[in-house]
Amino acid sequence: KKRYNIALLPGDGIGPEVISVAKNVLQKAGSLEGLEFDFKEMPVGGAALDLVGVPLPEETFTAAKLSDAILLGAIGGYKWDKNEKHLRPEMALFYLRRDLKVFANLRPATVLPQLVDASTLKKEVAEGVDMMIVRELTGGIYFGEPRGITINENGEEVGVSTEIYAAHEIDRIARVAFETARKRRGKLCSVDKANVLDASILWRKRVTALASEYPDVELSHMYVDNAAMQLIRDPKQFDTIVTNNIFGDILSDEASMITGSIGMLPSASLGESGPGLFEPIHGSAPDIAGQDKANPLATILSAAMLLKYGLGEEKAAKRIEDAVVDALNKGFRTGDIYSPGNKLVGCKEMGEEVLKSV
Amino acid sequence: KKRYNIALLPGDGIGPEVISVAKNVLQKAGSLEGLEFDFKEMPVGGAALDLVGVPLPEETFTAAKLSDAILLGAIGGYKWDKNEKHLRPEMALFYLRRDLKVFANLRPATVLPQLVDASTLKKEVAEGVDMMIVRELTGGIYFGEPRGITINENGEEVGVSTEIYAAHEIDRIARVAFETARKRRGKLCSVDKANVLDASILWRKRVTALASEYPDVELSHMYVDNAAMQLIRDPKQFDTIVTNNIFGDILSDEASMITGSIGMLPSASLGESGPGLFEPIHGSAPDIAGQDKANPLATILSAAMLLKYGLGEEKAAKRIEDAVVDALNKGFRTGDIYSPGNKLVGCKEMGEEVLKSV
Ligand SMILES: CC(C)[C@H](C(=O)O)[C@@H](O)C(=O)O
Ligand SMILES: CC(C)[C@H](C(=O)O)[C@@H](O)C(=O)O
Repeated sequence: KKRYNIALLPGDGIGPEVISVAKNVLQKAGSLEGLEFDFKEMPVGGAALDLVGVPLPEETFTAAKLSDAILLGAIGGYKWDKNEKHLRPEMALFYLRRDLKVFANLRPATVLPQLVDASTLKKEVAEGVDMMIVRELTGGIYFGEPRGITINENGEEVGVSTEIYAAHEIDRIARVAFETARKRRGKLCSVDKANVLDASILWRKRVTALASEYPDVELSHMYVDNAAMQLIRDPKQFDTIVTNNIFGDILSDEASMITGSIGMLPSASLGESGPGLFEPIHGSAPDIAGQDKANPLATILSAAMLLKYGLGEEKAAKRIEDAVVDALNKGFRTGDIYSPGNKLVGCKEMGEEVLKSV
Repeated sequence: KKRYNIALLPGDGIGPEVISVAKNVLQKAGSLEGLEFDFKEMPVGGAALDLVGVPLPEETFTAAKLSDAILLGAIGGYKWDKNEKHLRPEMALFYLRRDLKVFANLRPATVLPQLVDASTLKKEVAEGVDMMIVRELTGGIYFGEPRGITINENGEEVGVSTEIYAAHEIDRIARVAFETARKRRGKLCSVDKANVLDASILWRKRVTALASEYPDVELSHMYVDNAAMQLIRDPKQFDTIVTNNIFGDILSDEASMITGSIGMLPSASLGESGPGLFEPIHGSAPDIAGQDKANPLATILSAAMLLKYGLGEEKAAKRIEDAVVDALNKGFRTGDIYSPGNKLVGCKEMGEEVLKSV
């Protein structure tokens, strides 16, 4: 039997509920494929702030770093919203991404036929959308120096952030994107603002230079403002998108809302080696926390990504994906994706229905 | 009779067609209100590159600078796409914005009842959308230093752009936004990324500090990734949005696509003094240039903004706005907004129909 160490970081809000459900699903899918998991649950975000005063305690980071893969719930909440920057729950995410060096963030945005009505886009525009956004996660304006608030020669405050990319940072994310596109429909769209930003000019140059190594992938380029429009005009035109940290933050959230089911969407953050970080793209939803109302499917599908991208266990991953489709086909829906004619269930019951089908 | 000097910069692609139509409409609306215009037409963008080798000739800038208001068509085209950065048509826009110091870019995004079907959003989501995006236009990452592509200590290329805002730059755009909101429905949403970017932390602090001077305006804050989602989920929640240069670039294009009629949307760029710059938000559409297919309404409505925001001639502006609605009510549509049951017309005929109703 293969054994894996999995770090579970439930975090805040609905995090604990969805992680507990996803853990059971992961365990069953794994055991049916001869895998065993040792789970280690650790506090992160606001939960860690309350417990030990920092968003990412050293023990949590160590457990994450030493694991084979990390499954994270959600981070943040009103309670800590007024904290100073370095004491905000979200900082845990930064430290995790940076220190685990998980530079490649994969965010699928797909519209399942069962859920096409959940989108605010017209049915004929939304149906069949199936894209993967590959976002650079450990560079760019999120981490660039100099940054801060200083006083200029007029005695006036000035806020500075620096968008910066070195060639190797662009190359490595571009390679992940080309490889991803190759396994999908072979189309890669690189999004930048090369008509304005020098950091984007280098981005476009490096991505273009790599294209010759991937002759089977059709590469195109798009400005970020146009991409924001095209996602609404005709999202089906996209297969794989690669872009920088901040544009990826914006466009992946836009794309997820196009699917209408942000409670359904998982993500994977991968580095060159070491464990990957897997988490739903939704937030901690403090308003419904603890009420058994959360949609656990994004976390369950994150567990599937963990198996596929984190451990290379494609069969177990497929079991989970199929089980989710099965539960949807049977009409089970949490509140966020409910439409009349279906069966409204809570977080736990949805988890049990998926579990049955695994 | 009042006389005004208007600089006309037709530019490239469909620019000349839409400017020629809008000029006639402007002239008629003005003369009915006792206004006379001296038009000065000057080359800009690709047209100027072809003629004299630079995107913004000195004579063009001088004519613009000395005018009372500037009406611009569109800039750019495939022909110049491979030019080096400083010889690209778009550079004319940068120089104009920077040197005219038009820091406040007003971009309305409205869904007219006649055109609600043009949106890819469901009717109930799109109908009634009426927002104004106030974008900072002469600062931030578009102009910040340092910028460029350099070689680091490993001999590797590095691309750098700097997001930077001084307090006074934030204050002046925030004031425009508060004033704008005050004249609308009294709601202002400031969009930033203050959970990550120091430049945004200062932005939020300054905007918040000004709020006490505008007790009649309800201020809220939103992260840019969430804003990109909310624009799709429920665009009607927005009245006035204020944001930085790059976020404004992305969100205003997204918002315009939500209306489904990017060929309808005007914009105004205003400074503390000196002439304003008025232009449609659509591009030069080289694929349909010279074929009398362009939708002139965005440029005609830009002429209305020129009258209202540039010259303070609200009555003449209203004449144009009403005439556009009139032409639409009569069923006239250019190809981009055509739906069965309406009358398909070209650029010129649409112009004549509006002209009749002025
Ligand atoms: C919480 C926030 C700092 C984070 C980001 O901007 O990266 C989030 O929006 C995300 O996309 O994971
Ligand atoms: C053409 C381009 C440089 C410009 C910008 O990014 O400002 C355009 O997208 C706009 O929004 O006016």
